Amino acid sequence: MKKIWQKDDNATNILVNKFTVGKDLDFDERLAKYDVKGSMTHGKMLTEVGIISHEESEQIIAVLKEILNKIESGSFVIDKNAEDIHSQIESILIEQLGDTGKKIHTARSRNDQVLLDIKLYLLDEIREITTLTNDFFQQLIRLAEQYKHVLLPGYTHFQIAMPSSFGLWFSAYAEALSDDLEMLLSVKNIINKNPLGSAAGYGSSFPINRESTTTSLGFQSMNYNSIYAQMTRGKSEKMLAMAMAALAGTLAKFSYDICLYLSQNFDFISFPKEFTTGSSIMPHKKNPDIFELVRARCNRIQALPNEFMLLTGNLPSGYHRDMQLTKEILFPAIDSLKECLEILNYTLPNIQVKEGILEDEKYQYLFSVEKINEEVKNGSSFRDAYVKVGQEIENNVFNFKAGNLNHTHQGSIGNLCLDKIEYQFNKLKNKLLG
Amino acid sequence: MKKIWQKDDNATNILVNKFTVGKDLDFDERLAKYDVKGSMTHGKMLTEVGIISHEESEQIIAVLKEILNKIESGSFVIDKNAEDIHSQIESILIEQLGDTGKKIHTARSRNDQVLLDIKLYLLDEIREITTLTNDFFQQLIRLAEQYKHVLLPGYTHFQIAMPSSFGLWFSAYAEALSDDLEMLLSVKNIINKNPLGSAAGYGSSFPINRESTTTSLGFQSMNYNSIYAQMTRGKSEKMLAMAMAALAGTLAKFSYDICLYLSQNFDFISFPKEFTTGSSIMPHKKNPDIFELVRARCNRIQALPNEFMLLTGNLPSGYHRDMQLTKEILFPAIDSLKECLEILNYTLPNIQVKEGILEDEKYQYLFSVEKINEEVKNGSSFRDAYVKVGQEIENNVFNFKAGNLNHTHQGSIGNLCLDKIEYQFNKLKNKLLG
Amino acid sequence: MKKIWQKDDNATNILVNKFTVGKDLDFDERLAKYDVKGSMTHGKMLTEVGIISHEESEQIIAVLKEILNKIESGSFVIDKNAEDIHSQIESILIEQLGDTGKKIHTARSRNDQVLLDIKLYLLDEIREITTLTNDFFQQLIRLAEQYKHVLLPGYTHFQIAMPSSFGLWFSAYAEALSDDLEMLLSVKNIINKNPLGSAAGYGSSFPINRESTTTSLGFQSMNYNSIYAQMTRGKSEKMLAMAMAALAGTLAKFSYDICLYLSQNFDFISFPKEFTTGSSIMPHKKNPDIFELVRARCNRIQALPNEFMLLTGNLPSGYHRDMQLTKEILFPAIDSLKECLEILNYTLPNIQVKEGILEDEKYQYLFSVEKINEEVKNGSSFRDAYVKVGQEIENNVFNFKAGNLNHTHQGSIGNLCLDKIEYQFNKLKNKLLG
Amino acid sequence: MKKIWQKDDNATNILVNKFTVGKDLDFDERLAKYDVKGSMTHGKMLTEVGIISHEESEQIIAVLKEILNKIESGSFVIDKNAEDIHSQIESILIEQLGDTGKKIHTARSRNDQVLLDIKLYLLDEIREITTLTNDFFQQLIRLAEQYKHVLLPGYTHFQIAMPSSFGLWFSAYAEALSDDLEMLLSVKNIINKNPLGSAAGYGSSFPINRESTTTSLGFQSMNYNSIYAQMTRGKSEKMLAMAMAALAGTLAKFSYDICLYLSQNFDFISFPKEFTTGSSIMPHKKNPDIFELVRARCNRIQALPNEFMLLTGNLPSGYHRDMQLTKEILFPAIDSLKECLEILNYTLPNIQVKEGILEDEKYQYLFSVEKINEEVKNGSSFRDAYVKVGQEIENNVFNFKAGNLNHTHQGSIGNLCLDKIEYQFNKLKNKLLG
Repeated sequence: MKKIWQKDDNATNILVNKFTVGKDLDFDERLAKYDVKGSMTHGKMLTEVGIISHEESEQIIAVLKEILNKIESGSFVIDKNAEDIHSQIESILIEQLGDTGKKIHTARSRNDQVLLDIKLYLLDEIREITTLTNDFFQQLIRLAEQYKHVLLPGYTHFQIAMPSSFGLWFSAYAEALSDDLEMLLSVKNIINKNPLGSAAGYGSSFPINRESTTTSLGFQSMNYNSIYAQMTRGKSEKMLAMAMAALAGTLAKFSYDICLYLSQNFDFISFPKEFTTGSSIMPHKKNPDIFELVRARCNRIQALPNEFMLLTGNLPSGYHRDMQLTKEILFPAIDSLKECLEILNYTLPNIQVKEGILEDEKYQYLFSVEKINEEVKNGSSFRDAYVKVGQEIENNVFNFKAGNLNHTHQGSIGNLCLDKIEYQFNKLKNKLLG
Repeated sequence: MKKIWQKDDNATNILVNKFTVGKDLDFDERLAKYDVKGSMTHGKMLTEVGIISHEESEQIIAVLKEILNKIESGSFVIDKNAEDIHSQIESILIEQLGDTGKKIHTARSRNDQVLLDIKLYLLDEIREITTLTNDFFQQLIRLAEQYKHVLLPGYTHFQIAMPSSFGLWFSAYAEALSDDLEMLLSVKNIINKNPLGSAAGYGSSFPINRESTTTSLGFQSMNYNSIYAQMTRGKSEKMLAMAMAALAGTLAKFSYDICLYLSQNFDFISFPKEFTTGSSIMPHKKNPDIFELVRARCNRIQALPNEFMLLTGNLPSGYHRDMQLTKEILFPAIDSLKECLEILNYTLPNIQVKEGILEDEKYQYLFSVEKINEEVKNGSSFRDAYVKVGQEIENNVFNFKAGNLNHTHQGSIGNLCLDKIEYQFNKLKNKLLG
Repeated sequence: MKKIWQKDDNATNILVNKFTVGKDLDFDERLAKYDVKGSMTHGKMLTEVGIISHEESEQIIAVLKEILNKIESGSFVIDKNAEDIHSQIESILIEQLGDTGKKIHTARSRNDQVLLDIKLYLLDEIREITTLTNDFFQQLIRLAEQYKHVLLPGYTHFQIAMPSSFGLWFSAYAEALSDDLEMLLSVKNIINKNPLGSAAGYGSSFPINRESTTTSLGFQSMNYNSIYAQMTRGKSEKMLAMAMAALAGTLAKFSYDICLYLSQNFDFISFPKEFTTGSSIMPHKKNPDIFELVRARCNRIQALPNEFMLLTGNLPSGYHRDMQLTKEILFPAIDSLKECLEILNYTLPNIQVKEGILEDEKYQYLFSVEKINEEVKNGSSFRDAYVKVGQEIENNVFNFKAGNLNHTHQGSIGNLCLDKIEYQFNKLKNKLLG
Repeated sequence: MKKIWQKDDNATNILVNKFTVGKDLDFDERLAKYDVKGSMTHGKMLTEVGIISHEESEQIIAVLKEILNKIESGSFVIDKNAEDIHSQIESILIEQLGDTGKKIHTARSRNDQVLLDIKLYLLDEIREITTLTNDFFQQLIRLAEQYKHVLLPGYTHFQIAMPSSFGLWFSAYAEALSDDLEMLLSVKNIINKNPLGSAAGYGSSFPINRESTTTSLGFQSMNYNSIYAQMTRGKSEKMLAMAMAALAGTLAKFSYDICLYLSQNFDFISFPKEFTTGSSIMPHKKNPDIFELVRARCNRIQALPNEFMLLTGNLPSGYHRDMQLTKEILFPAIDSLKECLEILNYTLPNIQVKEGILEDEKYQYLFSVEKINEEVKNGSSFRDAYVKVGQEIENNVFNFKAGNLNHTHQGSIGNLCLDKIEYQFNKLKNKLLG
């Protein structure tokens, strides 16, 4: 098939075409509807500034609406011979409207067109990631509340350290999600700027109105400078990858804890059999594959920012075709992150928490700091009490029954501040969904 | 020297000590003043809640003030035999105040103490980075304004593409800095939460008042959950590394452009001899070493987020000593980023811009799109005009003199929107410095 | 479908299954034949040591041969409901042979089975990569020979430096490939060790003969220690990724040079139109998309080692399900690397080299070192000659016509040592293909 | 101080100098002796080919010998005002020999000079890393032999899996070191090629003899092509970083195992108190800081290859000043890796191994596969036995006392093949040290 920009027919050969198109068409499907919306807005603006007539604009928009309907109903078919979705849609316009169809690309380049499509798509995905993160957050808060009285050993250096609780553990991850959303929100703000009109990165001599398209498309602002608009290709993706990596880091750490706590050597939690996997050789195994795979996938996602840096690093300003690969790097990773959140949201309500863990003798030293604190409350200085209790442990005469732990300060076992954590989270969530 | 936490003298031997302390003391110097401020606030709060007496608190704060004065006047000497700065300060208190000095570590762990010091330090560095970025921004805007009429070829795929200008080029990087600050601001918000009181990551049984210390220390909020407060170690550094990498990405790209434009094959700009470097073998060389080294250093900075992910990845919750290395990874990188901004700010005012670049014949095709646009304005459809001009080029009959380029839309050569770009930048800068 | 290791039917639910299986089946196809060969060898050995009878072994091997034929003829269909290819093949054996089929998994785990399949597959891919690299090498040598007299400016710091030649340039990349093969050979040696018999990483109580299977399968040696055999999962992939990254680094650099040399500002080479791509907006463009995409893909490949480190880092010994993802990370990257080599091998013979480049006045300073050398040959010291020529340039009186450059030492323009470079390359290539 | 290549005095100003020199001088110290050796060899060769006289060469070498003696005796002082060590040594020659001293840089550039110094230095460091790795290997083999009868639970997915032993565990890491040396050996081969004579990357018109210097300096071969010789800057460092990362990966994993096994929840090993560290708040703590820091440092080392890729990626051929940073990235990492090996070698002999671990009831299911195997030996098929034992476990009637485990195959608990593992290791070690 002849490309839109081809001047004669046999210029690009098949192998070259296969290599340069690559996996691009696989990702065009999700961009289709944004491409159509972008063209509708562009066409409307061309009329406003007098570049095409009202009648032409109406014809163009009518055809685009049909295409959009097909896309939304699932009946639009990507033409595997098209160079890309953008060319395919332009071709349909030309086929149906002749000379009028040939006018849609006035004052636009495929560069700003693709930039626009990707940004609109990413903004939608940011919303979806936020929603799934919110579901996960709600679960963690609910579990924290439910198990706030069930104690757990707290570790530092993998060594038994001080008393903790399931309430403290679950809500730690809830609070972590707030900071992850904070970064995601900044990325939303960065992406939420209209690149349309920057053409190939140097603008054009047409008197287009970029404020009109900014408003129509619902952007918060625009990427003013045309060169910079072009630079956001690769940069938007890299920055979203950073925010995704931050969130993935939280999920991976949580999953690591789960895998460890499921080990018979910790045995703090369990899951119904249907959430575990067997072994081809050991019949007693109930493996935490879900959580290992969440961890593994999230570690892949943490590799993303670096992959973007290697891809985009040391390229001077101006578009380079290298940017094409940002789609195949980022889009499957977005899917994967969402799947991780979904499976956690599906699995977590089934977690079973063990009670009475601290009764095991090996956890007695957890209370050494409690003992010190008691000495301090009775008038000893902290350092002297520390030495005294240390010697009791050394001489095997340490003996302390915790009784009712009385931790009262903000963020301690007895005072989880779940309402504060929820307040912080919701403020960010609302900005992200707004 | 005996450690604060040692129960007898000869327990840890010299080699082990050397290995575990590592380069830590090299970085403690910059934390010293924050450590003292943190202890002052902690001591004051201990009095408020009745854990130590007013008199004790006053004595402690008096000694700490002396230390702070010494630090600020440069006369405080890090004891190379101390385990770390935190132990050294506690030792001075004990030496001078005896039992009273032993009370400062009540309801605190070295974990939350270090967390606090690092956060206070990073918040100051964020301010400094912002200030230097602002200086760079102002230069770029000034140069854009100054050279807004000087044309430059615009490239895509390293191929001559369309007319650009020095105004467009300089201000592209100015606008880029806004998005970089957007991410830096989110990181500031993430770091700007008080961890003090989380102790070793599980809180304590002392009735401390964390809101009091949050207010006293000027934090925006607190890390409520004690486990999460501990998790921010490594995470704060990683997230700041991301924001630094974003900014470094912008500086590296700008430097790459400079190196290219200085090449005799482009020859768009020059610098006075004192900003270039010679060769040991080729007497004609004026090498752009400054910009190569800015690029190289900024590429190192872009490696930081990944280094933090490798360091902190797959560690379950709870403190691990691995976190000690975050200082030696991040702190020199902060210095390096600031030095890059400083040298750019120092060098950039000396840039010399060539005029008349586009007169060279090889740049004539820059105007092919102008020609198309003219055809379109005269009634042709875009696609037909595109084919026509393409054939003229193919047949070597393309001939177009640009005359006065008339680019008028927002973000084009003729309408740089510098005021809009400044407005966006200043809004973020003010939040970062506020 | 019930899993091989399932004790009752409804244990694992659909969503969990979908998440845990992931993209695994997509990659099983290429492992199928190795799996069958492994089972054939395993079955034969079980008979040798008396665990199953000769008759049983013959029956098993007969069924496996049928499966292998189907795989090789392309008629074997992966069952999308099977857990994986390994289970599917075991199921066929059980279906066809009943109790005898149930014996093939004796003294084996899916862990060592998968390890084996992947190693055999990777060894084949290493051979293919070597062959394609050899083709690329031969082209470079041929082009170096062909264009050894055509001069080119040599650059340092993007500044015009000294005379170079197309012969020197092409063969530089040829020699680079030798070092890349050196690392690939070490990785071949690392992978070329039999893991079969290590079971789930702890061996078994069956008296199997691992030397027999090592010989049958053509391995150079074995991974003796069962725990270590298991550790090679992830490590083999990581190390191959390193060698691929090294090779990709060479291809990316070469492609970058090509993109630059195709720029009108260098204009050293060209390609027929069919190897370039147009623009949707600029009719004069002949973009080097192939080389930009080779560069971009190779930069992705350079991200691989790090991705494996993030995936496998901080996991203690013993299998973790995280390892499943190594396939989806590595296998498509192998395809991509091979495609890059293929398109380079296809495109490179069409390169067109410009003659007379150095006649352009801007390249005159290339000869400043020649001038110095002439002074030195006439008795001046190097440093004095350097200063003298430097002053001539400074005062705009430098004037030197190179005449016939007479570079004679090994590795210089006049003495490319192509035979030596070929000798080194071939020695490594032969070991890799042997 | 005036630079060797400066034509007048005040050209480069102080700030620029400070920024461009950076930390370079800190690393020059370790290059000094190689620089002198290189110059001695270069001078000798210049005489052989008639560029300088015998007498001049003798004078030059005499001064260089004095400098070398000073360096080796520790009395050579790096001049902090010198641009770098190379300039300083050339300056001494000029100062002492006048015009004769000015001749040493004939037919050489700082580029090939630095390349040479770095390669000679890295080759020495590769030897040292090998020696330290050998010490670690010997310890592991000795411990494996000593504790070959002490059993340990084997884990997969952090779940109790099958019986393992300390012998198997220690020697797994010994065998791992072989594969790490395999890659290190390939890197040695890659680095072990003489770059001297490639000048600034384009050779020269002097009739130098590169084979002579190759032999004198003890290189295995040479980097023939001058452009490629220059390309090895950055590439050598990157490849060594890969081999170091592989070795570091092994040390990090081992350290992670140690940290876990020291946890009270595993409690498989212990160390004397002097190898552990206390807590500032919890007197019972014996933290495994050494191993956490080995892990952390080794994770940093695993970040190196990527850092080099970001630094060197997307730079076209020809020297760029970016390469200067390779020293400050790689050299401290080499030190750190050696320190990790040293501390492991120092600490490991003190490891204390627990006996009787498997007597704890929670480890009973370790023997489920033994039970299956027994059923198989008694005539059941593997799959039927698997189902039967699985049901026993499900119904809580599984009961199996292992008695004497009888694992006999190569690489199993009862047959560690330490001699084979040693043979493989020694073959590589000898090539690396030879």
